[in-house]
Amino acid sequence: MGEDHVFLRACRREPTEYTPVWLMRQAGRYMEEYRDIRRKVAFLDLCKSPDLAAEVTLLPVRKLGVDAAIIFGDILLPLEGMGFHLEFAEGEGPLIRNPIKEREDIERLRIIEPEEHVSFFLKAIEIVRRELEGRVPLIGFSGAPFTLASYLIEGGHSKDYSKTKGLMLGEPSWWHLLMEKLTEVTIRYLRAQVHRGAHALQLFDSWAGCLSPRDYEDHVLPYSKRLIQETGQQAPLIHFSVGTSGFLHLIKEAGGDVIGIDWRMDLKVAWERLGYDVGIQGNLDPSVLLSSHQMIEAHVQKVLESGGNRPGHIFNLGHGVLPETPVENVIFMVEAVHRLSRR
Amino acid sequence: MGEDHVFLRACRREPTEYTPVWLMRQAGRYMEEYRDIRRKVAFLDLCKSPDLAAEVTLLPVRKLGVDAAIIFGDILLPLEGMGFHLEFAEGEGPLIRNPIKEREDIERLRIIEPEEHVSFFLKAIEIVRRELEGRVPLIGFSGAPFTLASYLIEGGHSKDYSKTKGLMLGEPSWWHLLMEKLTEVTIRYLRAQVHRGAHALQLFDSWAGCLSPRDYEDHVLPYSKRLIQETGQQAPLIHFSVGTSGFLHLIKEAGGDVIGIDWRMDLKVAWERLGYDVGIQGNLDPSVLLSSHQMIEAHVQKVLESGGNRPGHIFNLGHGVLPETPVENVIFMVEAVHRLSRR
Repeated sequence: MGEDHVFLRACRREPTEYTPVWLMRQAGRYMEEYRDIRRKVAFLDLCKSPDLAAEVTLLPVRKLGVDAAIIFGDILLPLEGMGFHLEFAEGEGPLIRNPIKEREDIERLRIIEPEEHVSFFLKAIEIVRRELEGRVPLIGFSGAPFTLASYLIEGGHSKDYSKTKGLMLGEPSWWHLLMEKLTEVTIRYLRAQVHRGAHALQLFDSWAGCLSPRDYEDHVLPYSKRLIQETGQQAPLIHFSVGTSGFLHLIKEAGGDVIGIDWRMDLKVAWERLGYDVGIQGNLDPSVLLSSHQMIEAHVQKVLESGGNRPGHIFNLGHGVLPETPVENVIFMVEAVHRLSRR
Repeated sequence: MGEDHVFLRACRREPTEYTPVWLMRQAGRYMEEYRDIRRKVAFLDLCKSPDLAAEVTLLPVRKLGVDAAIIFGDILLPLEGMGFHLEFAEGEGPLIRNPIKEREDIERLRIIEPEEHVSFFLKAIEIVRRELEGRVPLIGFSGAPFTLASYLIEGGHSKDYSKTKGLMLGEPSWWHLLMEKLTEVTIRYLRAQVHRGAHALQLFDSWAGCLSPRDYEDHVLPYSKRLIQETGQQAPLIHFSVGTSGFLHLIKEAGGDVIGIDWRMDLKVAWERLGYDVGIQGNLDPSVLLSSHQMIEAHVQKVLESGGNRPGHIFNLGHGVLPETPVENVIFMVEAVHRLSRR
């Protein structure tokens, strides 16, 4: 493929013929083909079957015409090797049956060897990379240390993340140990993905937006920064978070070639605040895909205008595709992005 | 009491001897006295018993030393009179058993007469106003039209508000009719509260932060603006929302004497962006109250510094007190705000 694909050029803020587009959760429940597979295979088993995971990864490339593939999986996959019992109950989100309660729970966490503990994930990357035959680049990904820590402490999703913040503010030495270990795991995990074929990386700090700027700066930023410094050399890295429009400058300080923005902020405003020495990814509200083609086109146009047709804008949703989204609306959206942004 | 209480002066951005403080959900489950009452009385029955609601309203004034009382109740109370079946299931949040599905559901909504349909609430205001004997001012409140609409359409809390946005973007004429009716109800409701004794008002647009700036501007702002224009003359109004740090300029455009800020943004940055012709309220992360006195004091200090000791800062949490909060930490926090801000 070389390094000249439109998506990779946009990551480097080089001019492109049109604005590249991919979607978070572009392979998922909104697709009939995915639901057919999931009727036969549980989520975690699907993640652990490299051939099936590769097949699912390739679905949206064939069906939607997106400009990048993202390897199918879940940010929590590396946690099993660290010693946690993961469960994905239907409609409930992930559950960790043995969340962190004591310092000993953190001390006994294993630093994984990706080639051993998540070999299925790396194998899927290898298969996808081969099958893509250079059509579009492949994105690898990981959860950021804070977001991973929040799952490990809460045991699943949380409304207010009060246990996580309780440990962070109440037991600083435990927090440091936990974040150190998660940073180390994430560095190894991302490097292994690039080694096996990922062209670019996305770091999901999805729940960083539950924090105040002060607490992000003091208790999260140093770890994300080290992680990005030690992996960002290998491949372009997209740093994504939700609800952080109040402290984007700190997200930028932590690092990333491209900053992912949710839909709660105008891209133009976001980019002005970030500065034009980083790329920007986003930021259509996923709910817009539940409306009409006319409404979708108007919103796509608005996002492109906010991106200012400036090199370095990668079109995406502000968060993942909703399961109830009609697939024809997603196809329409991708086509609209290409058509309306063509220079 | 007159108009010279520290809280009311801060609402008008006049100098005060110290920074006034109150807390969202300052009367609630974290207090033993409240739990004792709730063991005997269900939530909705408590709201509908003016004497008990008044007693609960006064608890934090006596116990915490806060600078304002806020009448006890729920933003959904006026919806029953409009024709909805409200339920507050323990630990589940509010449920509306007959949410909006068709245009007819909107057409048949009644515009309430507050003196008839929420007389219990107005009666409680009258009692509290009398019992306060001028010690601190009393805040009345209402949900904003968008946040009320989201409950009416989703039937309760929602993760992504996709039904609400679906109706907003997919059925603009239904949306307009619904927002018109909710705006009218809210205007009447807030005016009646001032008439019966509320010194100030807080408008809760708690879930506006699920929207993109574009959709807020097109589909929400005009209604909130009219509402604030037609009630803001009567008493100082605090306009509160969560997760809107990406479009604070639009919240300000909608109006309010004071803008309530959640904890995801530095107050200094927020006030710079808003301009100093409005007051600002906030913004300690409620989770900080689960940590130590030392940590609480450091965070209080930081919030006060961000507020810059400038007239017009009202100290509050960024959202409501968490139920698991130790009451002695709240007392300590209120004392710390007064001590550290005394000029």
